[in-house]
Amino acid sequence: MTYCVAINVEEGLVLLSDTRTNAGVDNISRFRKMFTWELPGERAIALMTAGNLSITQGVITRIQAAIDRTEAGEDIETILNCSTLYRAAEIVGGKMREMMESYGEAISQQGVSAGASIILAGQRKGGRPRIFLIYSAGNFIEATRDTPFLQVGEHKYGKPILDRVIRPDTSLADAINAAVVSMDSTLRSNLSVGMPLDLTVIKRDTYSFHARRRIEAGDPQFAQVSAAWSEALRHAFAELPPFEE
Amino acid sequence: MTYCVAINVEEGLVLLSDTRTNAGVDNISRFRKMFTWELPGERAIALMTAGNLSITQGVITRIQAAIDRTEAGEDIETILNCSTLYRAAEIVGGKMREMMESYGEAISQQGVSAGASIILAGQRKGGRPRIFLIYSAGNFIEATRDTPFLQVGEHKYGKPILDRVIRPDTSLADAINAAVVSMDSTLRSNLSVGMPLDLTVIKRDTYSFHARRRIEAGDPQFAQVSAAWSEALRHAFAELPPFEE
Repeated sequence: MTYCVAINVEEGLVLLSDTRTNAGVDNISRFRKMFTWELPGERAIALMTAGNLSITQGVITRIQAAIDRTEAGEDIETILNCSTLYRAAEIVGGKMREMMESYGEAISQQGVSAGASIILAGQRKGGRPRIFLIYSAGNFIEATRDTPFLQVGEHKYGKPILDRVIRPDTSLADAINAAVVSMDSTLRSNLSVGMPLDLTVIKRDTYSFHARRRIEAGDPQFAQVSAAWSEALRHAFAELPPFEE
Repeated sequence: MTYCVAINVEEGLVLLSDTRTNAGVDNISRFRKMFTWELPGERAIALMTAGNLSITQGVITRIQAAIDRTEAGEDIETILNCSTLYRAAEIVGGKMREMMESYGEAISQQGVSAGASIILAGQRKGGRPRIFLIYSAGNFIEATRDTPFLQVGEHKYGKPILDRVIRPDTSLADAINAAVVSMDSTLRSNLSVGMPLDLTVIKRDTYSFHARRRIEAGDPQFAQVSAAWSEALRHAFAELPPFEE
């Protein structure tokens, strides 16, 4: 499985994904699920993928192939030259639909889920930071001020802390910590989500990546936040008033 | 949906269930999911149900009908007179299989899931406190010292706190608080789980119920633990070291 989370606060965007992929419990591999494109000063876009790996790899390959063709001089629309982030989500949704039309039915006939979902996050000059969640049918939703984060994959373990902490005015530092704690809870409770992680941060109105960093197993920073959170939870739990049964 | 959790610590058993049932999002009702039977000083048994309500109500009805028949003088085996808790789990599993054989296929043909699961928890004189999780096929697993709790329904939101806190030597008071906090996280993150709650506590070697209590929406004790946990989490989160991206 997978866990990816994208958070949209006033200071910018935080994205965090794991890298574990499994085709059955005895076929576990590591695949990057975070993909980033940047035109510094003009736009920064990241995709995070979940679900059937053959479908999502096909989508990413087609998106990159289109960008390669424009760099070779062709005049076609891509997520890097399209007019809005909304249009970029439509382009990703279109590639998703192409992959599903080519392979969806054949995959399902094998008794395997072809389902996939992709988070698109980024900002272009002239627009605001936006997060979209694109489904298998190519349709998509956008995070709003009411719900300023979106998740794909094993989202339930890590949702309670996001529900409690994330508001539009949450600081970028707190949004990063919330993503880390949300991932840490998921890693502890579900073996199908695993290190290393990919963290991406886009500060508002910079149209570039403030951070793109791989967090390896044993990363001292991650271990420190994880241990501090464990200790704080244990302490907080011990201080609870007794529940008179 | 549903969330039920049963915890087995050295001091005894803690069971907590919600009461919300939904047939689609626009057909939401309240049904008890916790059922208890007691022969004070000899055995105390509780069942908690999840999944297709027509199946689980049928199972409970058949179990109660058998007990009623022994009370009228018939000599048949029931969960109250059988020799072990393991045998009681087999009896519940047998009723589950009967219901599935009668209705499972017809329900599935309507495109509705017939799936159900039941937690059985209790202790009889001469035995130890035990928790079983009975599946739709009538098969079951038992909680062990390695995993001293079992959950049914929407179990993921509330699992991280149990993973962190529950050990065999956790006190009964802490096990109750862990169940309450686990339920509180689930209630906040998933609208298909709802108040009121049913709490049951069986102290080891008493073979009777220490507590059987309904926790209504607005219950001051529940509100106090919930608010204390929220405040403690917020405080703990604010104290985390910054994650250098």
